[in-house]
Amino acid sequence: MVLPKEVTIVEVGPRDGLQNEQKMLSVEEKVRLIDSLSATGLKKIEAASFVHPKAVPQMADAEKVMKSIERRAGTQYIALVPNTVGARRALDCGVDGLAFFVSASETHNLHNVRMSREASLEEMAGVCALAREAGVPVRSYIVTAFGCPFEGKTPEDTVVDLAARMFDMGASEVCLGDTTGMANPLQVFNLFKRLAELFSPVRLAGHFHNTRGTALANVFAALQAGIATFDGAVGGSGGCPYAPGANGNVATEDLVNMMEDMGLSTGVDLDGLILCAKAAEAMLGRRLSSTVAQAGPTWRLHKAPGGETENRAS
Amino acid sequence: MVLPKEVTIVEVGPRDGLQNEQKMLSVEEKVRLIDSLSATGLKKIEAASFVHPKAVPQMADAEKVMKSIERRAGTQYIALVPNTVGARRALDCGVDGLAFFVSASETHNLHNVRMSREASLEEMAGVCALAREAGVPVRSYIVTAFGCPFEGKTPEDTVVDLAARMFDMGASEVCLGDTTGMANPLQVFNLFKRLAELFSPVRLAGHFHNTRGTALANVFAALQAGIATFDGAVGGSGGCPYAPGANGNVATEDLVNMMEDMGLSTGVDLDGLILCAKAAEAMLGRRLSSTVAQAGPTWRLHKAPGGETENRAS
Repeated sequence: MVLPKEVTIVEVGPRDGLQNEQKMLSVEEKVRLIDSLSATGLKKIEAASFVHPKAVPQMADAEKVMKSIERRAGTQYIALVPNTVGARRALDCGVDGLAFFVSASETHNLHNVRMSREASLEEMAGVCALAREAGVPVRSYIVTAFGCPFEGKTPEDTVVDLAARMFDMGASEVCLGDTTGMANPLQVFNLFKRLAELFSPVRLAGHFHNTRGTALANVFAALQAGIATFDGAVGGSGGCPYAPGANGNVATEDLVNMMEDMGLSTGVDLDGLILCAKAAEAMLGRRLSSTVAQAGPTWRLHKAPGGETENRAS
Repeated sequence: MVLPKEVTIVEVGPRDGLQNEQKMLSVEEKVRLIDSLSATGLKKIEAASFVHPKAVPQMADAEKVMKSIERRAGTQYIALVPNTVGARRALDCGVDGLAFFVSASETHNLHNVRMSREASLEEMAGVCALAREAGVPVRSYIVTAFGCPFEGKTPEDTVVDLAARMFDMGASEVCLGDTTGMANPLQVFNLFKRLAELFSPVRLAGHFHNTRGTALANVFAALQAGIATFDGAVGGSGGCPYAPGANGNVATEDLVNMMEDMGLSTGVDLDGLILCAKAAEAMLGRRLSSTVAQAGPTWRLHKAPGGETENRAS
């Protein structure tokens, strides 16, 4: 079994994590979180979303956040934009990259951005033109790439066609989003293998939610197809709009722990990341879905207790 | 990628799940749980542990539970035993199989059963003799098969040697336990591949805890090595003695959901299983770590909401 030797972790907690959290964080809290995340060595952070403040109140202060963070050398700060208006706002803040998104499912796209996929792709052309002018790359999400909560499993061909159009428009990377945790690892392996043969694995990324516990299984499947860029949200923040109380994004520390334990290098300081996760939990006032923030890294050993016996483990 | 077409799920919640739960359940509650589990079509249930009542108070009523459950045709009821004393008690209740356990780690075995691995293996010889006499099979766990919280990663050779000795003694199945969630999927694939070549994949099983979120990734890795028998605990009950608040066993419903979504047949009614998980949560008075009991099966779709827009998913 051959896996990539190095992986790139894209931290999306400050955007995808926070936008699904009830509690509003202050600009200061967001800046502190982002700065402590960049200090762990993360090379890419999706720091904010330039959407209409009415659509996502948690992101209303995107400009303030982007302008207040410390821009660590070696970290690229990306912003999500739904249209050219958002792209202009983000570029005015000097972001290092834009992220755009189109759902593979027409029903989901209509619900998510109130326009058809075709209209979204037209919007994307404008965003790509602005990005080209500014000399920054565009990362393009295919939302509901594996399944849609309204339409069910996503046909592979739909994703292949969308990816081709996104690359044609100038996307530097296409990231498949398992938005509501509907992917299974066999499906992930097959779809990524097909895409990696058509395009190149280095231009593809995986964004998995842990709604049904399969996020790391899906990551492992994608690794086997040669994919080496994965999104995570610190602490496993966020949630699922269709399943109250369900897990959100895979926790970045769970991702890093599994990679490093397999000998795949991430360049991220896991202990520092766990502190970020605990800080995020404190800010949000709730226990998040991270497992490694709770249990510690795999390689952290315990002292054997005294003489007591338990007669029970297996 | 070739995976087994059918998988056997071994429900260990009534034993491994409950023994790590603080709240004591009554005999009636345990019986109700086990009977509702067998009604979902589960072919194997580890129903109790015949250990000393002082060691695991939750299992003090093992005889009463075993004698009160409805013995559904098509379900095998297994009991965990730490020695010949326990084996006699279990066989007196007419169990369909015994389960024995030895840690791959000497330190863990000393802590767990206050004897060396060699002493445990001698005990196992006695248990196997009793089982042979009674005409029931012995399932043998290798505890801490991938890592020990005191000693670190488990050397492959240690597991191979232990498995060989267990088969020599007459074990029908050897089950590798990732007792504190220290396995990673690459390690799981490599170890199971080696064991499957030495022995047969049909005589091997995997028992994964989700302490660090990797349980389903490890299951997926084991499937690729040809393994087709996996343990789960309803609701994801239990926990980890070395990490308070950490996840316990992988939830059976998460396991079944992933298998069925990949087209692998389990013979288990997932909706019924989710009801069992919710009942277990009610009995134990706490939210368990199951994700599918929270989010529902992958294939359960939602109605698209009205005209509201969110501008935020990815």
